[in-house]
Amino acid sequence: MGTKNIAVIVGSLRKESISRKIAENLIALAPSSLKPAIVEIGDLPLYNLDLETEAPPPSWQRFRDQVRAAQGLLFVTPEFNRSVPGALKNAIDVGSRPYGKSVWAGKPGAIVSGSIGNIGGFGANHALRQSMVFLDVPLMQQPEVYLSGFDKLVQPDGSLVPTTQEFLRKFMHAFAAWVDKIAGS
Amino acid sequence: MGTKNIAVIVGSLRKESISRKIAENLIALAPSSLKPAIVEIGDLPLYNLDLETEAPPPSWQRFRDQVRAAQGLLFVTPEFNRSVPGALKNAIDVGSRPYGKSVWAGKPGAIVSGSIGNIGGFGANHALRQSMVFLDVPLMQQPEVYLSGFDKLVQPDGSLVPTTQEFLRKFMHAFAAWVDKIAGS
Amino acid sequence: MGTKNIAVIVGSLRKESISRKIAENLIALAPSSLKPAIVEIGDLPLYNLDLETEAPPPSWQRFRDQVRAAQGLLFVTPEFNRSVPGALKNAIDVGSRPYGKSVWAGKPGAIVSGSIGNIGGFGANHALRQSMVFLDVPLMQQPEVYLSGFDKLVQPDGSLVPTTQEFLRKFMHAFAAWVDKIAGS
Amino acid sequence: MGTKNIAVIVGSLRKESISRKIAENLIALAPSSLKPAIVEIGDLPLYNLDLETEAPPPSWQRFRDQVRAAQGLLFVTPEFNRSVPGALKNAIDVGSRPYGKSVWAGKPGAIVSGSIGNIGGFGANHALRQSMVFLDVPLMQQPEVYLSGFDKLVQPDGSLVPTTQEFLRKFMHAFAAWVDKIAGS
Repeated sequence: MGTKNIAVIVGSLRKESISRKIAENLIALAPSSLKPAIVEIGDLPLYNLDLETEAPPPSWQRFRDQVRAAQGLLFVTPEFNRSVPGALKNAIDVGSRPYGKSVWAGKPGAIVSGSIGNIGGFGANHALRQSMVFLDVPLMQQPEVYLSGFDKLVQPDGSLVPTTQEFLRKFMHAFAAWVDKIAGS
Repeated sequence: MGTKNIAVIVGSLRKESISRKIAENLIALAPSSLKPAIVEIGDLPLYNLDLETEAPPPSWQRFRDQVRAAQGLLFVTPEFNRSVPGALKNAIDVGSRPYGKSVWAGKPGAIVSGSIGNIGGFGANHALRQSMVFLDVPLMQQPEVYLSGFDKLVQPDGSLVPTTQEFLRKFMHAFAAWVDKIAGS
Repeated sequence: MGTKNIAVIVGSLRKESISRKIAENLIALAPSSLKPAIVEIGDLPLYNLDLETEAPPPSWQRFRDQVRAAQGLLFVTPEFNRSVPGALKNAIDVGSRPYGKSVWAGKPGAIVSGSIGNIGGFGANHALRQSMVFLDVPLMQQPEVYLSGFDKLVQPDGSLVPTTQEFLRKFMHAFAAWVDKIAGS
Repeated sequence: MGTKNIAVIVGSLRKESISRKIAENLIALAPSSLKPAIVEIGDLPLYNLDLETEAPPPSWQRFRDQVRAAQGLLFVTPEFNRSVPGALKNAIDVGSRPYGKSVWAGKPGAIVSGSIGNIGGFGANHALRQSMVFLDVPLMQQPEVYLSGFDKLVQPDGSLVPTTQEFLRKFMHAFAAWVDKIAGS
């Protein structure tokens, strides 16, 4: 029992990222059984096995330690070119290595995707799911979250519009139940 | 008419990358109507719109210029976690921006994927195809190239085993025909 | 030169199908270089190799003949459970057999997907694209067409709302250019 | 507690289907907490909402009842044209309707895909996973099963070659643990 640490990974790197604002709202909406915190990915050098062998960058180690310390995973990402941003895929790759020492395996996960247009980041959402199969991350299937027009969902003061807030509150409660089911309550 | 420049983009960054060795063989196997050359992606900072606005890294500009100067695209990539390596996705993202100035649109493309195991990089191959729809890169559909056990396909002297060499020679001729069809002969 | 026959394949079977109504509008919007007509799929028995060997159903033969007579392919489909309807996938399978006698290969294609909700049938659209790689159908990449809220796009008299009509008129002209490029003008 | 009924759904319809033979072996390899049985899909008419409204075919009802009675789902499928066979997708569609009465939701699932060639049915495997997200079927992520050259894995007497048998025995034990975790032990 007790609260579970959740590594929140945001797919966009810019300071005023909508995904980051949504992630901050999700953190605030989490029920008390979850303790979510953002794990940064913007300083991770592109994965290269030669670096691993010579001298793994300190940021890789920092990232791996932070994810390893979590009991669950929450991805919040925009769609870049019908898939996940390169920065997010790179973080996934860094966490999956060195061979045999992946930090992802067995941790329950959930995905929130969004885009400015109508599609709600569907392509990013499912591209991420495909990687999570290999990495043995049991994913919550429902509710799926595809945020369309997600630049309109965050108000000037940083809070969510009410209907989105209610939807995402329910999502976070469902995620808490999923974490309990997979990781044990 | 005349030869077409082909930007060859390699998904793996390590020095002894199998994908790079296969790319070098593909370059050697190209018919004379194609002039393929590797465009490097290992030095591209992770895409971040703030960087774009403040001061686009010189490597982004270098990469965009090189792709812009090509009349076709050849991707050679391993599979990382059932998708394209983060480094490759990042290069795709960098080339797609700033908004309205993508360097990819309209260039005929082809994909070679590979993996150590049986699956031949199928997940990477099709993840890349999904991005190419958005980026308006007309892709050659056949022959599909999924190189299974691709560490066994390159011999100690760097050349390909004969059956793979023949297969990839045919692939490069089909690609040349595809480039002619899309870009004009 | 001359007009090209286009096989229009509709993913939904019900009589009042929105996809069918949209297909009928697309047919009306086609430029004169295209002669599109719906090829029916609702009477095709589920593909089973035993049937092929014993006595191929007449509807399979009818379907194969009609697709074979076309110089291009236009798919108009809803999304069922984040992918193409089983009926559409079955038609694709029927057309791909017997082994070595696929009716699909080399014909230029385009896809229109739609759904009641926001996602515009993205999952169906790209699932279909994955099959078309294997079947060697060169697909037009842009404009992508994802029709969200597509039940609202068809008016009571069967015509499209004006903005959708204009968008789809451009789409059909782009498709005609694609057919010319791939199949020869 | 007690044994769980598992609906085993086979993607190929022909009598001598390799997928069916593998399914029969999987049934024999199941630990005692699972009671798997094949649910037939070959007689399901193509899904059509008009049929639902007028008179749902008895086979649809039979199929829905059988899946509803199961506490878990095991899919065993070949790949047709880089995706699931139309027959399998049709069964999924039939089980998902009428609206609000899906028989799939909440049941733990696992997937075995295979193909004659190297790719192990990767395309079918992940296409199926995409539908299972929408249908709220929590899928076991590991071990993934991609059976390459799967016509060589079944011996003339119908049994599996020993290494495959051992692999699939472990798979069935992992699946039993997954069913217990999701459905309660």
